[in-house]
Amino acid sequence: MIITPAIRAKYSFAEQEGFALECGGELRPVTIQYAVYGELNSARDNAILVCHALSGSAEVADWWPELFNADSGLNIDRYCVLCTNILGSCYGSTGPRSVNPTTGKIYGPDFPLVTVGDIIQTQRAVLDHLGIDRLQLVIGGSIGGMQALQWAMDFPTRVANCISIAAAPLGPMGLALNHLQRQVIRLDAKWKNGDYGDDPPVAGLALARKIAMCSYKSAELFSTRFGRNPNRNGENPWAEPNARFDVSGYLDHQGEKFVQRFDTNSYLSITRTMDTFDPIRKYGIRAYERIQARVTLVGISSDWLFPASEVRSLAGELRSCGVDCNYCEIESSHGHDAFLAEPDKLASILASRMSPGNTLG
Amino acid sequence: MIITPAIRAKYSFAEQEGFALECGGELRPVTIQYAVYGELNSARDNAILVCHALSGSAEVADWWPELFNADSGLNIDRYCVLCTNILGSCYGSTGPRSVNPTTGKIYGPDFPLVTVGDIIQTQRAVLDHLGIDRLQLVIGGSIGGMQALQWAMDFPTRVANCISIAAAPLGPMGLALNHLQRQVIRLDAKWKNGDYGDDPPVAGLALARKIAMCSYKSAELFSTRFGRNPNRNGENPWAEPNARFDVSGYLDHQGEKFVQRFDTNSYLSITRTMDTFDPIRKYGIRAYERIQARVTLVGISSDWLFPASEVRSLAGELRSCGVDCNYCEIESSHGHDAFLAEPDKLASILASRMSPGNTLG
Repeated sequence: MIITPAIRAKYSFAEQEGFALECGGELRPVTIQYAVYGELNSARDNAILVCHALSGSAEVADWWPELFNADSGLNIDRYCVLCTNILGSCYGSTGPRSVNPTTGKIYGPDFPLVTVGDIIQTQRAVLDHLGIDRLQLVIGGSIGGMQALQWAMDFPTRVANCISIAAAPLGPMGLALNHLQRQVIRLDAKWKNGDYGDDPPVAGLALARKIAMCSYKSAELFSTRFGRNPNRNGENPWAEPNARFDVSGYLDHQGEKFVQRFDTNSYLSITRTMDTFDPIRKYGIRAYERIQARVTLVGISSDWLFPASEVRSLAGELRSCGVDCNYCEIESSHGHDAFLAEPDKLASILASRMSPGNTLG
Repeated sequence: MIITPAIRAKYSFAEQEGFALECGGELRPVTIQYAVYGELNSARDNAILVCHALSGSAEVADWWPELFNADSGLNIDRYCVLCTNILGSCYGSTGPRSVNPTTGKIYGPDFPLVTVGDIIQTQRAVLDHLGIDRLQLVIGGSIGGMQALQWAMDFPTRVANCISIAAAPLGPMGLALNHLQRQVIRLDAKWKNGDYGDDPPVAGLALARKIAMCSYKSAELFSTRFGRNPNRNGENPWAEPNARFDVSGYLDHQGEKFVQRFDTNSYLSITRTMDTFDPIRKYGIRAYERIQARVTLVGISSDWLFPASEVRSLAGELRSCGVDCNYCEIESSHGHDAFLAEPDKLASILASRMSPGNTLG
């Protein structure tokens, strides 16, 4: 079943006054692409905000369709599900490909640094526009999980429930991998300091994506799926200099697909947004005391980028700040990607939290 | 104490007949740089062969000095310790920077594919030259550990003891990372299809090394050492577009150091040698039945490139083939690099195996 949004729209604001960014600079105007599934009830208290990950879009039913099953949580007969494309992305919201009104040209590499907090502010503007004061639930994975947590901290009274999956402040291994991915992009001769116009550095972006893919998956999954098999098209690594193993053929294919759908400067922008998510830096050591929502943190057993141990330990920090926080772990060999690759396991966590007996709000 | 080799020499062979390579092609001549510490006894039965890892050299006392303590195993009052620079490297042995006699120019990117078996054959030639028939011990880590295992399979009667550390046939995650590193090098405009002459693709090679470093270390180590600290020189990732976190400054420094000491085509060659190590492919499913040596396989608890679980499982395969094989695990947060970074832990394993009560041979 294909689920289409009831509303698919853009909302623009800060046209006159500008939208001040947390790390300095401003955007004027800001446009946010959003999608709404289901209907807001008359009390306007049945809204769920879904926050997407690095390369997602507002059309959440396209990339998380399994969660829309009636008994999987995002039941649109009951809830109004909203998703916005994040600031800095390339799927309709203001980002590096938007025109900078000051210069009349696209921002490109001059697009300013955006934090997760800035993203939350743009989502709040959309919610205000739609007349939604309070969210029954904010949910997301990876940088979407960062957004869910940031919501619970930045607008404590507006969030009843928060489910943050495979997310925590990025550790140094993740910071390192983001840094190296950005360097790979800048190594591409087509990068041209970000002013690549219509001829983007696709080789560099593809390679960055492939490095990221290794951190999104797990050695166990690769072993099961590819082993040490030569590439399935018949290449022979023992005979030809550039012959590949199967896992490399798979990654190359993933890289090629990605560059057809994503902007390089957006990729750089969003990886920096991930890097800078840091509640303690923003609010101090008792940051999590701000949270009033009931929080569920979900770790993934084979996640290398956001190890389950770190998510579990974050749950402990929240509890020690008095937050009503539980921790669930998805047992999966899919690595970080399990929140997308094994939606059924996530759906059962979501469904149990959203069950009628487990009253929200 | 600085330990210098008793002999530091080159041995050349196959000058007329050529050295046939396992995957096709030949090298003529082959020159192997080697170093000898301590003296061969009159029975010529006290030799230990140390096999170096990807970027090592024949001068093992430079990179594994701690193992030369009198009670750490490589006691040169008792043993004659030999190490050769591997085929394909750039520290004195035949490799991509050697002159191809057919063309009169350096091999560069045309250097043929070398297997771990080819490396063993060149080491055997050096041993024959030195009049060493049987090794008391062959030991190495990473691709050095592959060599140690290959020795025990290719020349079963010539090896009394084999210690292979943090090694197994490379799994698909390792194959993927090697593939991506080679692609990063080829993305550098200075790559020039490998004919880079005196202007090597240092940015690409540095990036490849940095990606590798992430797989050599562990998230736990990075967390302890760098956390989420901004780069120690005062950069501010919340303020400047290219400002780094501390872990990134560290990796950039490691990359810069590496390109000053290593040849790019050698890097490509040796990563392919690693990829192609595959005893089952060479000898079939009962490959390990060939082994007569007493084998110790050493896993490292935090190794991501060669997970301890895989090394442990390899030990099981050897035992099921009737090999006298034990498995030890180094408990360390240093990741794959622990065999170099925590030599004391390795020394105790080595010393117990080499203790007088634990008679060799």
